[in-house]
Amino acid sequence: MTKDKAIGWIGTGLMGSPMVKHLLNAGYKVNVQNRTKSKATELIELGCTWFDTPAEVAANSDVIVTIIGSPADVEECYFGQEGIINGMKSGAILIDMTTTKPSLAIKIAEVAGMHGAQFIDAPVSGGEVGAINGTLSIMIGGDKAVADSVLPLFETFGKNIVFQGPAGSGQHTKMCNQITIAGTLIGVCEGLLYGFKAGLDLNTLLQSISKGAAGCWSLDILAPKIAKGDYSPGFTVNNFVKDLGIALEEAEAMRLSLPGLALVKQLYLSIQAMGKGTLGNQALYLVLEKLSNLNKN
Amino acid sequence: MTKDKAIGWIGTGLMGSPMVKHLLNAGYKVNVQNRTKSKATELIELGCTWFDTPAEVAANSDVIVTIIGSPADVEECYFGQEGIINGMKSGAILIDMTTTKPSLAIKIAEVAGMHGAQFIDAPVSGGEVGAINGTLSIMIGGDKAVADSVLPLFETFGKNIVFQGPAGSGQHTKMCNQITIAGTLIGVCEGLLYGFKAGLDLNTLLQSISKGAAGCWSLDILAPKIAKGDYSPGFTVNNFVKDLGIALEEAEAMRLSLPGLALVKQLYLSIQAMGKGTLGNQALYLVLEKLSNLNKN
Repeated sequence: MTKDKAIGWIGTGLMGSPMVKHLLNAGYKVNVQNRTKSKATELIELGCTWFDTPAEVAANSDVIVTIIGSPADVEECYFGQEGIINGMKSGAILIDMTTTKPSLAIKIAEVAGMHGAQFIDAPVSGGEVGAINGTLSIMIGGDKAVADSVLPLFETFGKNIVFQGPAGSGQHTKMCNQITIAGTLIGVCEGLLYGFKAGLDLNTLLQSISKGAAGCWSLDILAPKIAKGDYSPGFTVNNFVKDLGIALEEAEAMRLSLPGLALVKQLYLSIQAMGKGTLGNQALYLVLEKLSNLNKN
Repeated sequence: MTKDKAIGWIGTGLMGSPMVKHLLNAGYKVNVQNRTKSKATELIELGCTWFDTPAEVAANSDVIVTIIGSPADVEECYFGQEGIINGMKSGAILIDMTTTKPSLAIKIAEVAGMHGAQFIDAPVSGGEVGAINGTLSIMIGGDKAVADSVLPLFETFGKNIVFQGPAGSGQHTKMCNQITIAGTLIGVCEGLLYGFKAGLDLNTLLQSISKGAAGCWSLDILAPKIAKGDYSPGFTVNNFVKDLGIALEEAEAMRLSLPGLALVKQLYLSIQAMGKGTLGNQALYLVLEKLSNLNKN
């Protein structure tokens, strides 16, 4: 990936903006587009070139990266009238870093192939902090040689970059990540709720349980927030519901029964029903509290 | 806790034996009793004094520690005809390190108090390896001054020793630990099962997800075992079912609804129904596999 290649970047939100800055710092030339142009202002000031549509970005770029919203947004961005497929040059490399449906990744890869381009799916974890610090975990699906060719680009903002297999494998890996988080979160929230009801001091409780077999990221990072009633988002309930929905849908398509995940999703729907979808996903605690008619906050 | 005090130790199984060895190495004089005498042979050879009943151990000891089996075993050991309460000296300190019911701990504390003795509940986590290495996490409930007085004893085999509150608080803390583990385990097992069904290589999958927000002890220690079909026990399904049952019973008594824990317990009952209760608790994977009519092994 030489630096004379033009990088197209669609999606300059909380994740995309700091990722583009890492590319700029590394000396890449970046063309940008975003649904809301104002969110790209800073990047334009830093030297990015603005284009009005994904098709125009694609027409002027060798590698096009997307990191946007829902699977429907991704579909429109690639297949819409003004989408990437309609604008891209032959030989282009397309990379979707949005967390989206594995089946959509496979579909984009097929269509891209039919038009002489190549596609890899490369969702990330690590959140806004990981994007800012350049320490994202990147899970890659697609052709291995293509993935290797864009590795220098990934290395500007990623730390744990792992090739997982053919098209869709990056998205499948991200689903495994979210499924595991769903379990750890209900374990942590139910453990804390039990502790609260039993009269324990939650922070003292955490001293006992956080270092052993119950230990997990959610216990280290989210439990102390719950203990002080802090439900500010690192990752929102709404985004988590989106991801758990994709995981359940894909699992069902594979005839896979995941009762734990299904239960956790239902509880998250209840948080949305409470009008609290913009809180952080540690708000799972709030619905469990409500189930037992408790309110510690 | 001076070393001229006689320590009584009831329960010389996988956990108790290495713990007693740490006491012996530290210079304590230890009286032992166990339901199966042969399991105490090595300790007797190392200098422990054998007594035939808990009452006799208690009659000859200043501090009496129990680490045995089920809540029913604990009840018999304290309240039975030949139990500790019937044999103990006035001023004795009783310590139960078995994982048992918080409500039983409260009851023993009350009865001990009526008989001029003091009781603390101090269950552990860290398993046989922690007992051997002297790195157990000890969760303490009872009178703070009494707990402080036996700290030197705990320090011979414990690393993370935390006073949690009044009688029963140690057991409640252990329940929080087990509840959290139940959640992390279903998250890990469902995540791995999804990955397997999606065609991912499980070890490569773990490289992507084990270091971020999905990270947990179960993913680090148990997932690699599952990936290679190793269901040997660190902690058995049967013991885990016992603990989850206590947690659900105590939660219900507190009018606490824990839907995640209830689901996980039901799945573990299915593993017992499969005749696999002596496997390690990572065998949760096997019942999920069966639910989806899969068999990777």
